[in-house]
Amino acid sequence: MPDQLTIGLLGGTGPQGRGLALRMALAGHRVLLGSRDPERAAAVVADLLGGRDLPIWGVANRDAAEGADVVFLVFPFAGQAEMLPGLAGAIGAKVVVDVINPLGWDEAGPRLLEVPEGSAAEQAQALLPAATVVAAFHHAAPRLLADPDREVETDVLVAGDDQAAKGLVAELADQIPGCRGVDAGPLRLARQLEGFTAVIVVVNRRYRIHAGLRISRLGDDKRRRVNADLRPAGAREEGS
Amino acid sequence: MPDQLTIGLLGGTGPQGRGLALRMALAGHRVLLGSRDPERAAAVVADLLGGRDLPIWGVANRDAAEGADVVFLVFPFAGQAEMLPGLAGAIGAKVVVDVINPLGWDEAGPRLLEVPEGSAAEQAQALLPAATVVAAFHHAAPRLLADPDREVETDVLVAGDDQAAKGLVAELADQIPGCRGVDAGPLRLARQLEGFTAVIVVVNRRYRIHAGLRISRLGDDKRRRVNADLRPAGAREEGS
Repeated sequence: MPDQLTIGLLGGTGPQGRGLALRMALAGHRVLLGSRDPERAAAVVADLLGGRDLPIWGVANRDAAEGADVVFLVFPFAGQAEMLPGLAGAIGAKVVVDVINPLGWDEAGPRLLEVPEGSAAEQAQALLPAATVVAAFHHAAPRLLADPDREVETDVLVAGDDQAAKGLVAELADQIPGCRGVDAGPLRLARQLEGFTAVIVVVNRRYRIHAGLRISRLGDDKRRRVNADLRPAGAREEGS
Repeated sequence: MPDQLTIGLLGGTGPQGRGLALRMALAGHRVLLGSRDPERAAAVVADLLGGRDLPIWGVANRDAAEGADVVFLVFPFAGQAEMLPGLAGAIGAKVVVDVINPLGWDEAGPRLLEVPEGSAAEQAQALLPAATVVAAFHHAAPRLLADPDREVETDVLVAGDDQAAKGLVAELADQIPGCRGVDAGPLRLARQLEGFTAVIVVVNRRYRIHAGLRISRLGDDKRRRVNADLRPAGAREEGS
């Protein structure tokens, strides 16, 4: 992975987008924080920077998609099916990280919405056939991402069918203090990552914390050694 | 919770049943390890005990269900819909802990099977309308459960609609060294717990470990304090 990538965050004005923008910039990357409304994106970035000198710019979603090396999808689930077809050309064949949790809410709390394609990430892959979609970062607490003085303390489970793309995203996760990238298998398991967010939300409400999750008994040396195998550029393994 | 309960493990001859039998007996409970074939249950228990003096008996499933204070379902998913109707009378209005993961396997690894009721646990609740079903213990590695010299190192996420039953099951989890009971919300989130097992299985294969999962940023004092509120005998809270 090059030391500096340009990260495009589509629908990045929400808490998750702002937090990821900050963390990716602190890791040394350039960040294009996209919104349907570029003026709103610029205002959010000005607020986010608060005078700090970090390479984050607020732009239109299309410009974020075109200018990025890696594209993150951080808009609400309802926006995905609506917005991706118009952005498919700008996204092209890039690596796309789908962070979206298709959750609904009622009096009993959060619940996972049905997605005909199986998961938000598989829906994104269907709408972006030229791109390589990976599901990740669902369990990183936005509040912690947005506070550079705190550690995020979560394993970032990465599901996808392209080993090199998973390796890249796991490496990006490793660059956020407290996060660890973990290979969570093929893209068809994205549903399990998205759904687990409902559990995290319930735990947060019950215990009044900003929880993450850790895979226990996964030593860091071993994790890095195995993850390194994910990374030969362009190489693809079948299965997992 | 009384110091000593009788725990009935239905379909308990597999790795998960044997491991839970051992840990529950080591925690001071009496264990009825059930099987369709009581002779097989007795043989498995003799092997499991290996000369140790622990209160575990191998019996028929029906006897395990009748004699238990708390019933664990640990048979394969395919067995649940077949076996529960015939055991509903013996189970009655007891607390039932559904540990079953409805997973299928193909060349790409594990995947979550569709369950018309939403999850294995909700299917069990539908088949046992008089009982109080709780979903838990999906992520405790059988290999570690079965080795009393090792810690299991996982949080035991407990989903259910009856607060007192969840409190009881969380307390049983706390009695296994390395495990911590965590309230994971209503029974409708059981699907997320069952599905996450597919992720654990993939991680285990990829990194060659016996993984569990930890909720991060959940301090133990706070956890116990909140869990204590789950436990007023017979009390039920709505929502979570």
